[in-house]
Amino acid sequence: MKKITILLLAFLGLQICISAQATDEDALAIREIYDVVLSQGDCYETLEYLTKEVGGRLSGSPGAAAAVDYGQQKFETMGFDSVWLQPCMVPHWERGDKEIIKIVSSNMIGTQALNGVALGGSGSSGDVGVAAEVIEVKSLDELKSLGAAKVRGKIVFYNRPMDPLQISTFAAYGGAVDQRVYGPQTAMEYGAVATLVRSMTTRLDDVPHSGVTVFEDREKTIPAIAISTNDAELLSGLLKKEPVRVYVRTTAHWMPDKLSYNVIGEIKGSTHPDEIILVGGHLDSWDLNEGAHDDGAGCVQALEVVHVFNTLKKRPNRTLRCVWFMNEENGQAGAKEYANWSNELGEKHIAAIESDRGGFTPRGFTTEADESVYKIHLKKAKSWENLLSPYGLTIKTGGSGADVTRLKPQKGLLFGLAPDSQRYFDYHHATNDTFDKVNKRELELGAGAMSALVYLLDKYGM
Amino acid sequence: MKKITILLLAFLGLQICISAQATDEDALAIREIYDVVLSQGDCYETLEYLTKEVGGRLSGSPGAAAAVDYGQQKFETMGFDSVWLQPCMVPHWERGDKEIIKIVSSNMIGTQALNGVALGGSGSSGDVGVAAEVIEVKSLDELKSLGAAKVRGKIVFYNRPMDPLQISTFAAYGGAVDQRVYGPQTAMEYGAVATLVRSMTTRLDDVPHSGVTVFEDREKTIPAIAISTNDAELLSGLLKKEPVRVYVRTTAHWMPDKLSYNVIGEIKGSTHPDEIILVGGHLDSWDLNEGAHDDGAGCVQALEVVHVFNTLKKRPNRTLRCVWFMNEENGQAGAKEYANWSNELGEKHIAAIESDRGGFTPRGFTTEADESVYKIHLKKAKSWENLLSPYGLTIKTGGSGADVTRLKPQKGLLFGLAPDSQRYFDYHHATNDTFDKVNKRELELGAGAMSALVYLLDKYGM
Repeated sequence: MKKITILLLAFLGLQICISAQATDEDALAIREIYDVVLSQGDCYETLEYLTKEVGGRLSGSPGAAAAVDYGQQKFETMGFDSVWLQPCMVPHWERGDKEIIKIVSSNMIGTQALNGVALGGSGSSGDVGVAAEVIEVKSLDELKSLGAAKVRGKIVFYNRPMDPLQISTFAAYGGAVDQRVYGPQTAMEYGAVATLVRSMTTRLDDVPHSGVTVFEDREKTIPAIAISTNDAELLSGLLKKEPVRVYVRTTAHWMPDKLSYNVIGEIKGSTHPDEIILVGGHLDSWDLNEGAHDDGAGCVQALEVVHVFNTLKKRPNRTLRCVWFMNEENGQAGAKEYANWSNELGEKHIAAIESDRGGFTPRGFTTEADESVYKIHLKKAKSWENLLSPYGLTIKTGGSGADVTRLKPQKGLLFGLAPDSQRYFDYHHATNDTFDKVNKRELELGAGAMSALVYLLDKYGM
Repeated sequence: MKKITILLLAFLGLQICISAQATDEDALAIREIYDVVLSQGDCYETLEYLTKEVGGRLSGSPGAAAAVDYGQQKFETMGFDSVWLQPCMVPHWERGDKEIIKIVSSNMIGTQALNGVALGGSGSSGDVGVAAEVIEVKSLDELKSLGAAKVRGKIVFYNRPMDPLQISTFAAYGGAVDQRVYGPQTAMEYGAVATLVRSMTTRLDDVPHSGVTVFEDREKTIPAIAISTNDAELLSGLLKKEPVRVYVRTTAHWMPDKLSYNVIGEIKGSTHPDEIILVGGHLDSWDLNEGAHDDGAGCVQALEVVHVFNTLKKRPNRTLRCVWFMNEENGQAGAKEYANWSNELGEKHIAAIESDRGGFTPRGFTTEADESVYKIHLKKAKSWENLLSPYGLTIKTGGSGADVTRLKPQKGLLFGLAPDSQRYFDYHHATNDTFDKVNKRELELGAGAMSALVYLLDKYGM
């Protein structure tokens, strides 16, 4: 018994020794990764090109085609074993002429222009535009309770703000965005002739924020306009005093679906080629901005992981794949195509990391997985927290990313890079999501976080 | 024995019950505090006034006098039991004319202006300026090893960058700032006629960053100029190829010390009036900017704590004192005066919280205290982490603030609000430290963090 105990203690001691040694080695390796990213990083310059030279890149637009072309060229320089474009048919919506939104009758003021942009997927007002009385609601339920009789012929104005009391702005967004996504269709069903939606931001300013709205039938749409929060406040204030008529002109329209592509690069794993680790972001953006935080940042951070492995002359044990997904913003055609293709091949993504919450200082990763494996995967990932905490990172439950979540059936662990969320909705889908809003160090630290996590996943598997 | 055990268990059970109840109560109270700050907060508007209406406020300047006057007026509206100005004599340095810094001889280019600003406390070149050959060093030690023979008559150029590999930019600053603080005096001792210092920022841009330099004798100074990082790179590049002469003209000079003030407001504690909790920031800034992050943000966050207590109609148990310290930037005359006065009165600050690291998303607090009490204080504060973690906050070792650290002899626990550090040195002491660089939510979350901590300190003491 005593002998067994001693043996057991010796064995445990050895385990602890090995484990401590691995930890030291890992700590040094992660430090080295951050050193590369922070002193020889490539992602800020890549982002500058993607935002300043390529610019806005809404699915189906010439900008998106240019982005695919640039992506392929860039990937070809990164030392992948193979680079390819994966075709997918994407929806193609066009904004048309610059929108006109005006208050045309009110005792308070004369004709007053409002800052507004058509929502992606919304319909045209026709060339002459549409003018109607505005009716303000705070929710879809409120609209429904008013009933068709009160809504018919009106412009419905959804004006429930994002809740400023949420600490996570993503939670606040989640609590308000139904107005933008589903509000216009519902308003149309109740007879509205157009929709105004308060922009999805906690800031009070003059910048309207676009984003997707969903009409069940592309042939049956009405104008749907996001107006700035300042203008939403103005309009709401006027409506408390008197009826207000607003004029809306938008020539937004659908075009036939268009061929586009995911950009994919792969380095085959040296020892476990069948175990895939994916890093990615989405290449498409809205049309009115440079798509800097959303999601140029995520694309270049994902690619930086490869740059880090190259710079450190480290060939991954497992297959490392970088994907710039097409069409996250309004359809996720790229994500669907990728997941279908991968599932059909019987591939196994042991992990996939998406960065799509802006290039701000990272606070860690949120995770999800198929229920049957999540607990055990999460435990393993959380065992790395001590290695990541010097860089301000934690690993938590809470979703991954719109593109990689479709890989859940492959039973790997799916991660979303979780940066500080406070400024994201200052810029989200708005004209001001430009390169200058991205801080180089914050961007690089996100790339460092992803690279460190890939290092651990590559070494220890999942 | 059995009975005692049962009693003991019952007692422990009761303790756990009470403790759980207190925790729930505290969690709700802290949530309420954040609700006030995020929906009815006053700090962003106060900062707008302090930065846009008052503006730059270097000790001894008219701006500083205006800031004191505004501070007193503002404090008078905050429902303090008493508001007073605490006199202190502050150093008074003036920048004089806009500095001229030019490369005047180089084969590469003709006369080339450099972006530079005189360091606070530096000397004049005289009206005609000074031109001399530049000698680049990376450290004070390198300068000393060159010796007086090689330095005499030259312009010394300190060019060691802040280390980009540090995750905390404050650590990087700490590793480079000796060049700015002590470099010019040392260069003068070795016979230099002027000094150029690479700006203290990790960014590469055209913005020079001022800050204090220390000459042992105000009558014996030389010009000392911070140049932008881009210009430091340019100059260093030229120096690798050929000798370079630079012309410097600055009329910076000392004036006689001037009377100024700390602005102080106090609410007497209802049950423990002798136990003081201080919240503060420093009112002075550099002259060339609005002092938005440094340290308008800290001032208005500290005052927001009082606004929160007022709004919740909560009278503190312990005495709550808000202090806007004068002269943190170049002398700490206000901090010295306050600490001397308080120590002489035999006061007991059980805690003091300073915010002076910018109005960015808070990540928690760093702490310090007299060695004799630190361990036990820190343990108590860390027991609150579970209440603070929903707001992304931790409590760690690591210093408090330049103004409150002098209260250490009173054996309370001293805190520094620790926000995300990545962007701080983009703006630090530079012309671009302006109101528009402060994000409302980030600022408010810092105020929420301080208010929550004060709530706990006020309830449980230290």
